[in-house]
Amino acid sequence: MAKQGILIVLSGPSGAGKGTICQELLRSDPDLNYSISATTRLARVGEQNGVNYWFISQVEFQKMITNDELLEWAKVYGNFYGTPRHHIATILNSGKDVVLEIDTQGATQIKKKFPQGVCIYIVPPSLDELAKRIQKRGTDSLENIKTRLSSANVELKYVHNYDYVVVNDEVQSAAAKIKAIIIAEKCQVGRNIITIENILSNVKK
Amino acid sequence: MAKQGILIVLSGPSGAGKGTICQELLRSDPDLNYSISATTRLARVGEQNGVNYWFISQVEFQKMITNDELLEWAKVYGNFYGTPRHHIATILNSGKDVVLEIDTQGATQIKKKFPQGVCIYIVPPSLDELAKRIQKRGTDSLENIKTRLSSANVELKYVHNYDYVVVNDEVQSAAAKIKAIIIAEKCQVGRNIITIENILSNVKK
Repeated sequence: MAKQGILIVLSGPSGAGKGTICQELLRSDPDLNYSISATTRLARVGEQNGVNYWFISQVEFQKMITNDELLEWAKVYGNFYGTPRHHIATILNSGKDVVLEIDTQGATQIKKKFPQGVCIYIVPPSLDELAKRIQKRGTDSLENIKTRLSSANVELKYVHNYDYVVVNDEVQSAAAKIKAIIIAEKCQVGRNIITIENILSNVKK
Repeated sequence: MAKQGILIVLSGPSGAGKGTICQELLRSDPDLNYSISATTRLARVGEQNGVNYWFISQVEFQKMITNDELLEWAKVYGNFYGTPRHHIATILNSGKDVVLEIDTQGATQIKKKFPQGVCIYIVPPSLDELAKRIQKRGTDSLENIKTRLSSANVELKYVHNYDYVVVNDEVQSAAAKIKAIIIAEKCQVGRNIITIENILSNVKK
């Protein structure tokens, strides 16, 4: 049996920078795979099926929920979004790792259904810094920024559901820490039963 | 309160290369500290108190056992050897890490008394390779080599008492994995309660 890959779940409050870190991880490690979500929303111009999303019908999505084929799912503004279990399992079984970027609620669902997943919480160095980053993006009204900060304050309390916390003071440094976490996880005793058995079986030769 | 350092316990069967890896870690990280053992044996020529060992009397050693001042201890060929808790605690409280190289029994004692210690088991790539390494050292008789291999075979079954397992196929690569483990451990949620509290307290400003 080949060694299993690892599912890395990146989560954190909006504006913490999980998307940028995820892109940096994928850029610097060509062997790392990105988990593609399934959605019932229509593809936008330029979006491709199996690249940006798996675009599926509401009926198909409901069937996946019923058959427990989704590691997590949510309904956002009338559209369904979810993480198909099969796609991830195929990659992990081939010994490769998968990274998944998701909100706090999705990460909590995944940890329940797939406890061997490694859940990493990306946090800003401070809430002041988070406010600056959201303002800098320029896509949110003052009211929205307040809501995001208040929500971040609540979400940060869920950090105890995670395995690791990485402060995103600088993207390269945060990505380096996540790479170290992946190496360390691969060294965990529980993930190396086969390695040990192989070493021990050698004596019988 | 300053962030606590981490106690890294390197263990593994004789010949696995834990000593060489430990030296490599200390060489490449000047901030890493080595745990100095206490012993009742006499200092050899060139050995210095507080550098190679803490040389103490049998009475002092017994007092340390009674006062639970040792994280582990053992009697070897009539002499006592042990790991003083105080020396390690002082370094960890200053936020620096400590590395400790010890046999399987010692590591098991430490894990019980100091569960926050990170126990890493260094294993050879195979028992054949372990045999080659012991032979290459040229300090063991054929009989001794057989005993060491048989003991390694038994010891390897204790790997489940450890947190991580690192295959020492090459010293640099094994040391790099241990460095990654240290980084990852520092990101564990349980070790970052203060960081999270600091981020959250920021919102009150």
